[in-house]
Amino acid sequence: MKIDKNTIKNYDKIYRTNLINSLSGLKSAFLIGTINENSQTNLSIVNSVVHIGANPPLIGFIQRPTSVERHTYENIINTGYYTINAVSRKMIEQAHQTSARYDRSTSEFEAVLLKEEYMSNFLAPFVKESPIKIGVTWKEELDIKANNTKLIVGNIEFLEISERLINDHGNIDFFSAECAGVIGLDTYFSPQKEIRLSYAKPTQPLKREKL
Amino acid sequence: MKIDKNTIKNYDKIYRTNLINSLSGLKSAFLIGTINENSQTNLSIVNSVVHIGANPPLIGFIQRPTSVERHTYENIINTGYYTINAVSRKMIEQAHQTSARYDRSTSEFEAVLLKEEYMSNFLAPFVKESPIKIGVTWKEELDIKANNTKLIVGNIEFLEISERLINDHGNIDFFSAECAGVIGLDTYFSPQKEIRLSYAKPTQPLKREKL
Repeated sequence: MKIDKNTIKNYDKIYRTNLINSLSGLKSAFLIGTINENSQTNLSIVNSVVHIGANPPLIGFIQRPTSVERHTYENIINTGYYTINAVSRKMIEQAHQTSARYDRSTSEFEAVLLKEEYMSNFLAPFVKESPIKIGVTWKEELDIKANNTKLIVGNIEFLEISERLINDHGNIDFFSAECAGVIGLDTYFSPQKEIRLSYAKPTQPLKREKL
Repeated sequence: MKIDKNTIKNYDKIYRTNLINSLSGLKSAFLIGTINENSQTNLSIVNSVVHIGANPPLIGFIQRPTSVERHTYENIINTGYYTINAVSRKMIEQAHQTSARYDRSTSEFEAVLLKEEYMSNFLAPFVKESPIKIGVTWKEELDIKANNTKLIVGNIEFLEISERLINDHGNIDFFSAECAGVIGLDTYFSPQKEIRLSYAKPTQPLKREKL
């Protein structure tokens, strides 16, 4: 079935939002932790974290238009610090609940019963229950003119992760970490192992490694 | 275990690349199809496709530095047209093999035995075997100064997808489509259903829908 952009434009808003949000497919669910000048913390689920570069280590995410109140974005801009925390299967409902529009005086940490964790003199709060925690500082933001969203790029300052979750190749083991993924805005999945493949070369067959 | 940015910097290059690429977690695997002015086609796997917006429908991906030859990027810039095609489980090895450095005169479609498909007078080639095909036109590109990568933003012109792969809410069914995901550069997974949750509100418990 062909669905063209005029058809998409005429869809009911929720249907269209679900269709186009889900189109970019399988994503990791992460929680962004921040704090403001009054020590008020904030926690917000994102499904748009993207790899930017390994050297220097950089990580990005897409920020929705800031025309409405965006506590996470304001805290990142005002302090320069934020944390990115992987969502495990056990945390799916709590993580999803952070997307509710709480007022500014409510910390989502308290509202959804996830624990703040502070470490290494890093200003922003981590999520204690998360198996993969990343301390990030603001580096750069890019304005996407087409729809007033932004790409926020951050420096990876440090990771906090169990040694057993990194394999000999340097790959993080999202399977053993029992991390959750999300499709669109509301559909959660867990990853099931398929295969690891060797570096591809034009004239050489791929080597397969069973996971 | 804490791993700080100095430790990361001093890691062996491949280990560091794997660690930081895998850190952004679960991603859908997609193939980008393009064509140049001499009708030479190109196919390239990407793991950085990201949702930009639903109205107008926009989709993005991160382009590696263009200091070396980048056939896909050149074709997108020169023609304005490209396709984004979801990778199914059956196509994992062929899709991965497109990352080999073939010379310009080789089409990855031929090299990995995936079929070109043309439709709706759209210039760029789709991947016939893919269950979810998106026709995209170049809209905007943003230079990430930190490391010379780019965010390429495209207009979603149309989708080609089986009607049975879109549910009543508008969500695309990546489970039935048997789509594959990738972690880092070499580790493939398939999604296993967990749960669908209702729109979150501050004072209302979430409704769960078993998938």
